[in-house]
Amino acid sequence: MKRVPIIGIGAGDPDHLTLQAVKAIARAEVFFILDKGEVKQDLVRLRREIIDAHAAGPYRLVEAGDPARDRTTPAYAAAVEDWRARRADVFERLIRDELGADETGAFLVWGDPALYDSTLAIVEEVLGRGIAFEYEVIPGISSVSALAARHRVSLTRVARPLHITTGRRLAQHVPVESDDIVVMLDARDAFATMPGASEFDIYWGAYLGTPDEILISGPVTEVADRIRATRAEARERKGWIMDTYLLRKVDRSGNADPAALRRKAAQ
Amino acid sequence: MKRVPIIGIGAGDPDHLTLQAVKAIARAEVFFILDKGEVKQDLVRLRREIIDAHAAGPYRLVEAGDPARDRTTPAYAAAVEDWRARRADVFERLIRDELGADETGAFLVWGDPALYDSTLAIVEEVLGRGIAFEYEVIPGISSVSALAARHRVSLTRVARPLHITTGRRLAQHVPVESDDIVVMLDARDAFATMPGASEFDIYWGAYLGTPDEILISGPVTEVADRIRATRAEARERKGWIMDTYLLRKVDRSGNADPAALRRKAAQ
Repeated sequence: MKRVPIIGIGAGDPDHLTLQAVKAIARAEVFFILDKGEVKQDLVRLRREIIDAHAAGPYRLVEAGDPARDRTTPAYAAAVEDWRARRADVFERLIRDELGADETGAFLVWGDPALYDSTLAIVEEVLGRGIAFEYEVIPGISSVSALAARHRVSLTRVARPLHITTGRRLAQHVPVESDDIVVMLDARDAFATMPGASEFDIYWGAYLGTPDEILISGPVTEVADRIRATRAEARERKGWIMDTYLLRKVDRSGNADPAALRRKAAQ
Repeated sequence: MKRVPIIGIGAGDPDHLTLQAVKAIARAEVFFILDKGEVKQDLVRLRREIIDAHAAGPYRLVEAGDPARDRTTPAYAAAVEDWRARRADVFERLIRDELGADETGAFLVWGDPALYDSTLAIVEEVLGRGIAFEYEVIPGISSVSALAARHRVSLTRVARPLHITTGRRLAQHVPVESDDIVVMLDARDAFATMPGASEFDIYWGAYLGTPDEILISGPVTEVADRIRATRAEARERKGWIMDTYLLRKVDRSGNADPAALRRKAAQ
């Protein structure tokens, strides 16, 4: 039986790899690479270094063109869906034609395959088309976990919920069921224009876990301009950016929670 | 300077450890252990095995009694806060008295230190009291990531948000701003009695990543009884349980999303 592990490789630091991921890489004979060739060469090189560091022997790299996605249409979900179907065509061909019987061909996924990544859904679709293979999922350190660790901040507060959403959605609606909001895939600096921004602190990070990592935190109204400028400059300089942030609603009335008050008193 | 790394060690599988965590364990001379001695001996042993597997040389284990938490009061947040303050007293004593200058004393945290874990807040409180040390946070594979990987399911759907909450809160209010809800710390099987349960699928997992792992999934109304019975039996047999689940609102009208329809058609 063909085996197709989907391996989460963490947010950018090669040491984010789990021992489980290291072992799975060592068992693979083939690595499937789908990348938009023109940008993100840093990420391609980093992934190549991860494979070279942990492969047990010779391996085959099978690269395929990633279908372009229509980013101009307002029908976001439909465009993503169409893109996913065309990616599934590519995955189907890779698994069917490029992987021998009893071979293991791995997909390496940045972050955690369970968070805003389409690989799982595409692999399920290929299975549904009747292509036979086994697959397993190996969890990875998400950019969300990496963000929290680098800021040394908890994502959750005692007995309170966490909401994870996208920049696109935040621009339409600021969640009210949680005072702690993680935003991913924000290409529009939605934090800067959100209603009620003055009630929130922000913990922002880009290129997390890499030598280019940038961290900025503070009240949104105080640091929004700095984040926007930093983000635009970094994106221009490197040609791409991957960033994420936590918004935390804080009580600026002085009626802070008891722990914060006590910590403040102790300083 | 004393160093106090807070190391996420994953959800229960020793291979969840990241290379970063492995290296941090190898750098530590002291490991601080706070445990309620009467139960969870499995977890104590598992953590000890992790230390033994990766410590670079001799090390000191410093164990301390974990203050009891008042679980009877309805004032949940206040009780947790009081418990946290008394834990901070213990942490302060450990770091001040049990760690030599220039020594490294690590706290190992199950899962990810950023998700419903109090270690970070306690360490911040000890810092605020004027105890001098450096600390860093090493992210870990959370039980949420492990749950999704074992069920081979994504936590998020295209362009849609994810809500992470507690069993206590779910029992009071079913979130409406997200159709994908992860529930942690649920001691009351809140999924079984939630309003609108028939609209949701559940992906439930206990003892994730360990030899005792249990996975159950399906429409809530079909599997709720089985999960309750399985959970009660396992808790009775082992003396403790750690479990978590994903609730996913699904369209049972037949107007499913295009990808699900196409996958179904392909089967």
